Amino acid sequence: MTNIRNENDDISAEAVGQFGLSDDTIHEIEDALQNDYEEGITNIIADLSIADSAELLGKLSEENRQRLLKEYGAAFDPGVFSELNPELRKDTLENMPPRQVARIIMDLDSDDALDMILNLSPDFQNDIIHKLSAKTRLTLEEGLNFPEDSAGRLMQREFVAIPQFWTAGKTMDYLRAATDELPAEFFDIFVITPTYHVAGEIPLSRLVRANRSDKLETLTLGDIHPIPAGTDQEEVAQIFRRENLTSAPVVDEEERLIGVITVDDVVDVIHEEAQEDILKLAGVDHGDLYHAVLSTTGFRFRWLFINLLTAILASLVISLFGATIEELVALAVLMPIVASMGGNAGTQALTIAVRALATKELSTVNALRVVGKETLVGTLNGAAFAAIMGVIAALWFDNTILGLVLGTAMIINLIMAGLCGAGIPILLHRMGSDPAVSSTVLLTTVTDVVGFFAFLGLAALFLI
Amino acid sequence: MTNIRNENDDISAEAVGQFGLSDDTIHEIEDALQNDYEEGITNIIADLSIADSAELLGKLSEENRQRLLKEYGAAFDPGVFSELNPELRKDTLENMPPRQVARIIMDLDSDDALDMILNLSPDFQNDIIHKLSAKTRLTLEEGLNFPEDSAGRLMQREFVAIPQFWTAGKTMDYLRAATDELPAEFFDIFVITPTYHVAGEIPLSRLVRANRSDKLETLTLGDIHPIPAGTDQEEVAQIFRRENLTSAPVVDEEERLIGVITVDDVVDVIHEEAQEDILKLAGVDHGDLYHAVLSTTGFRFRWLFINLLTAILASLVISLFGATIEELVALAVLMPIVASMGGNAGTQALTIAVRALATKELSTVNALRVVGKETLVGTLNGAAFAAIMGVIAALWFDNTILGLVLGTAMIINLIMAGLCGAGIPILLHRMGSDPAVSSTVLLTTVTDVVGFFAFLGLAALFLI
Repeated sequence: MTNIRNENDDISAEAVGQFGLSDDTIHEIEDALQNDYEEGITNIIADLSIADSAELLGKLSEENRQRLLKEYGAAFDPGVFSELNPELRKDTLENMPPRQVARIIMDLDSDDALDMILNLSPDFQNDIIHKLSAKTRLTLEEGLNFPEDSAGRLMQREFVAIPQFWTAGKTMDYLRAATDELPAEFFDIFVITPTYHVAGEIPLSRLVRANRSDKLETLTLGDIHPIPAGTDQEEVAQIFRRENLTSAPVVDEEERLIGVITVDDVVDVIHEEAQEDILKLAGVDHGDLYHAVLSTTGFRFRWLFINLLTAILASLVISLFGATIEELVALAVLMPIVASMGGNAGTQALTIAVRALATKELSTVNALRVVGKETLVGTLNGAAFAAIMGVIAALWFDNTILGLVLGTAMIINLIMAGLCGAGIPILLHRMGSDPAVSSTVLLTTVTDVVGFFAFLGLAALFLI
Repeated sequence: MTNIRNENDDISAEAVGQFGLSDDTIHEIEDALQNDYEEGITNIIADLSIADSAELLGKLSEENRQRLLKEYGAAFDPGVFSELNPELRKDTLENMPPRQVARIIMDLDSDDALDMILNLSPDFQNDIIHKLSAKTRLTLEEGLNFPEDSAGRLMQREFVAIPQFWTAGKTMDYLRAATDELPAEFFDIFVITPTYHVAGEIPLSRLVRANRSDKLETLTLGDIHPIPAGTDQEEVAQIFRRENLTSAPVVDEEERLIGVITVDDVVDVIHEEAQEDILKLAGVDHGDLYHAVLSTTGFRFRWLFINLLTAILASLVISLFGATIEELVALAVLMPIVASMGGNAGTQALTIAVRALATKELSTVNALRVVGKETLVGTLNGAAFAAIMGVIAALWFDNTILGLVLGTAMIINLIMAGLCGAGIPILLHRMGSDPAVSSTVLLTTVTDVVGFFAFLGLAALFLI
């Protein structure tokens, strides 16, 4: 758990209803850096919360950020670096002396420390590891036993586990006495068997209301959701959201309690998981805002290159009908409409399917029904736009058959858009691929090729 | 807080590492319904958790769902209906007798009850309100004083508030004695002044470790984030995520404590907020999976119609160059490539900008830098694809100037794509519009119009 309480903060009337760092503060820092106004900078930094400091570092230009960290880096709380975007964090830390980074890492909770060090380049990791305390090194090594993005990496290893046969009073006495071994903040205590299996949990709000003589077994709630340490964090987030959990025990292969995940650790995962599809659909990377120009360009190039192949394929279809277009240039004018309407309608179906697959609202049992519905929606909207564009085209080029051809092509393409928009993600998902990554390209290929082929093909048949 | 603990659940070995409802169970229910196997259905429902039951109802066909609810509706826990997608919930409840719906609502926490009743049609609301107890009616009316999607609607009105001058021991005694008035589960107690202003909060894990004689003021953490009741839930979610909160006090206009929001109430908001941009960008509605065909068709029609206008505008540009295309049909073959690459590159920049604006990582202070970077990325990828496609086009049509014209048009369009992809959302945001709603259409207009105009215009100048 990242604990960012700051006991010195006071509550002022202005603070109510405002949050986040104002652009004014950022400008103040920029001005102070410009004028080497040391005291001003120190004062501003001292007033910032951890979240504010992280926002400040994210929004400064690279030059100002590096200067600020070089000259005032020690003024920032170690927790600030945990809150940075991973891309920005890597950049920032690798520009700092290894000794300072080691100090930051030793100051963090085990989960945050591990996350921070793994994000660094292997060379820099080596520089740092030698400067860590033996205890921190050991904790990090334990964390490495679990796969990346797993519950084992997300959990904290400090938790409260109490034997079944204790009373509420004895438990409270223990909590009071063992303060140093316990996590700073916790919401539930876990009741364990002699073999360290989780028998249940007791929310603190239940424990404080118990009488000292109450046996723990009378207080224990048995409805727990033990999470195997290897579970992917995406699944952890879904379990928390689905079951409205505030904390969950993490267990090893023998189902023994080894850690606990609390909901505040999962909040960021929930956020990332919910937004990652939008980034994948567009072929961009989450860190793009902080990547250097060249690495962003390179990453995007790959995605655009695949799209270029799709576009070339569409051009090949058009080139089949070169002679037809030469005879009736109106076809060249109208053909992008068919393809673009298909693309847009298909994207609508695709977005719904991709999200519903991610949230597990869509599975084998209702897949056919969803595809059927999307195809029907495509058919209805296809008919509507066929009528609209058919009339417009017939009037524009004074050619009724051209209007009919365009209308027919639009119906065909919007039916395909609905069918494939929903069908492609479902098929990819069933084949074990991530539907958000490749659905768009496949869909665009279909709507472009079908759109151009239907429109130009029908034109070649009926118009020339 | 939605409390979905079920004390009767037991922990079986198979449950570990699995979550969610299996498709098999859904098929079992479908079969049992088919065969009128009453006992089978009752048994399956009894074994389902609240989240499982909600998933079941979401995945059954409309016919099966309605039959199941009609014949076995009373077997479901009232909490199940809170967990349904709002669209599906409306549909489901309005098909049930008002008396049964009233019973469900009276059984829920105040926040869930309000959410449920407001989701219903006004007529059906009236039918139900008369059947509610006076107490429930009063609570609902209080909730209506706060704007939709505000902190006031999200909060629970049951919380623990303790005067500053009490000791830890007296507080614990009070918690033990006042069980009936307190929320079922809570994580923090709020320390208040005589005027009901929040002086600070004490996490339960801090309270249980205190000595009975400790004064509360020595335990109180002053770093609280009081949230005005009118705050939008989107902002509430961002505050929780930004400050890693587990609970926050909600205050009225005089800053007096009136409720509390806990992180588990915010988890769904965080999820919705993070995914809503993807739905808006595609012009689809969150409930689309559950909407009837006609309402989905209607909603999508509006979005597609606006896109049609964009496509027609692009066609008008093409029609300006009808004579040019007639002379060199290769132009018709290649022109979609320019437009589509511009559209894809622009969407990449746009997605980054829309998300960064939503998470407040992008604001006035770094807007110019982000637009500058995206324009540069567009220029570099424009140059790369200009080279690739220029050579391909020159070879394909054996025409070097055609290759040069295509390459130049691509550079121009990808620069515009980067500039407008980042710039349009930022401008819309500054004008107070939601950038996710209209950015795509505006961007497509730019990349289509500029793409066709640059390519065909240059061709008219240098090729004909």
